[in-house]
Amino acid sequence: MRMPTNSSKLRSEQAAGLSPGRLREAIRAGRYRGTTEGLAPGYLQANLLAIPAAMAYDFLLFSQRNPAACPVVEVTDAGDPRITDIARADVSTDLPRYRVFRNGECVREPESAVDWWREDLVAFLLGCSFTFEHALRRARLPLRHREAGRSIPIYHTGIKCNRAGVFSGQMVVTMRAFPGSAVAEAVRIMSRFPRAHGACVHVGDPAQIGISDLQDVSFGDPPVIKTGDVPVFTPCGVTSQLVAQSAEPDLMISHYPAHMLVADVTDEQSAGC
Amino acid sequence: MRMPTNSSKLRSEQAAGLSPGRLREAIRAGRYRGTTEGLAPGYLQANLLAIPAAMAYDFLLFSQRNPAACPVVEVTDAGDPRITDIARADVSTDLPRYRVFRNGECVREPESAVDWWREDLVAFLLGCSFTFEHALRRARLPLRHREAGRSIPIYHTGIKCNRAGVFSGQMVVTMRAFPGSAVAEAVRIMSRFPRAHGACVHVGDPAQIGISDLQDVSFGDPPVIKTGDVPVFTPCGVTSQLVAQSAEPDLMISHYPAHMLVADVTDEQSAGC
Repeated sequence: MRMPTNSSKLRSEQAAGLSPGRLREAIRAGRYRGTTEGLAPGYLQANLLAIPAAMAYDFLLFSQRNPAACPVVEVTDAGDPRITDIARADVSTDLPRYRVFRNGECVREPESAVDWWREDLVAFLLGCSFTFEHALRRARLPLRHREAGRSIPIYHTGIKCNRAGVFSGQMVVTMRAFPGSAVAEAVRIMSRFPRAHGACVHVGDPAQIGISDLQDVSFGDPPVIKTGDVPVFTPCGVTSQLVAQSAEPDLMISHYPAHMLVADVTDEQSAGC
Repeated sequence: MRMPTNSSKLRSEQAAGLSPGRLREAIRAGRYRGTTEGLAPGYLQANLLAIPAAMAYDFLLFSQRNPAACPVVEVTDAGDPRITDIARADVSTDLPRYRVFRNGECVREPESAVDWWREDLVAFLLGCSFTFEHALRRARLPLRHREAGRSIPIYHTGIKCNRAGVFSGQMVVTMRAFPGSAVAEAVRIMSRFPRAHGACVHVGDPAQIGISDLQDVSFGDPPVIKTGDVPVFTPCGVTSQLVAQSAEPDLMISHYPAHMLVADVTDEQSAGC
């Protein structure tokens, strides 16, 4: 069988014009391996976290006890990488890039997870903040990091997640700075998307949640903060990733950062109200 | 030790004046065994469903796949009947009455579950529609069954729940009839409480969801429907109960109908937006 050639690869601009279904087709065929940020605007994107079935109850309970930080939108049956609700897709082939962890250590970053999938894996799909960022843009609210061409700033915090079995840890958050006059509207819009990390955990003084210096990010780029801006903090998908890693499953497969599953449900369909 | 005497028992009117904490105290001490309907207005009440840990993952997954019908608000650790989130309470003692099931059959209706609790039981607390009924009353919307002093009409439907492991079945719904001019407001208010069965599944023609005659109820009392009223259907807690019963756990403990856990969180705190 002939493998797809480089000449058939899609550039981001071409990928940007595709429907979620066509995009997943291109990814599955090896024709697109880039970030999904900005693609299929208006459709839900999801983080992937696949762990052994023996740990799946504890993780599902963790998500029930920490819904803002760990918003589960679909769970596969053990050993079957297919989902049917947010999209008809195979999560072992339909993301552009993956990370494979052994006992909590990243050992590979493959373009397909097929060779790594195992009979006892259960895949969790978690909402992603691209959803509410899209809604914020539609409302013409400024996104400082995007305007500056930077990645979103991400921070460890002192906020303890609620433990569930083997899963525990501190919440990781993203920060977006808004003019004081826009904070209420931003919070209102984000709050509509609790399944996409839109439930704010803190507004204002970073020190109160254990962040001593906003310029000293844990991941991503340092923020741009203008005079009069107020920092707004929302839970980040990295929380679940780190909590899962620290439980050291013998095998864990996740999406590669910003290389998500693009779903068939729209942002609006995933809204809480 | 002297047991509480009858003379110390509370009448409903007395119970109605108590805070959730005091009310649970009275229940725990055997001083109140009546319905919790109308008590501690403005506070969340919860259905109880305790099943063996071996079935807990499937049930939690069922709730993830059927959030409207099975809105889990807290889950205990196996063997420990205490909850800490929606209230600091012991779910084996703090409800006024229970039902005990063996292999899906109700065998007892005791006033305390202590003697029946088992090391491997996991308790699920599920939101209850009292929450949005209270919100509807605050908005001065008519509740036909209450005006007529009747129980809410409950129906089996043809709507299939999404299967999760050993749990599957059809959705059971409650029906409230509203004047056509009030349907939009009623739906808007109920929608704020997705964790209390407020997510409507159908408005209008009952036949479309498999109900041939609204007067022919499955549980509760036949409805009062006035000229110009439109039927509005929401998922009912009985769904989870029947789905769990039909999986025939060797032991299952639930609340007795309308005898709920009264939580310390308010309706507003439990709202989705």
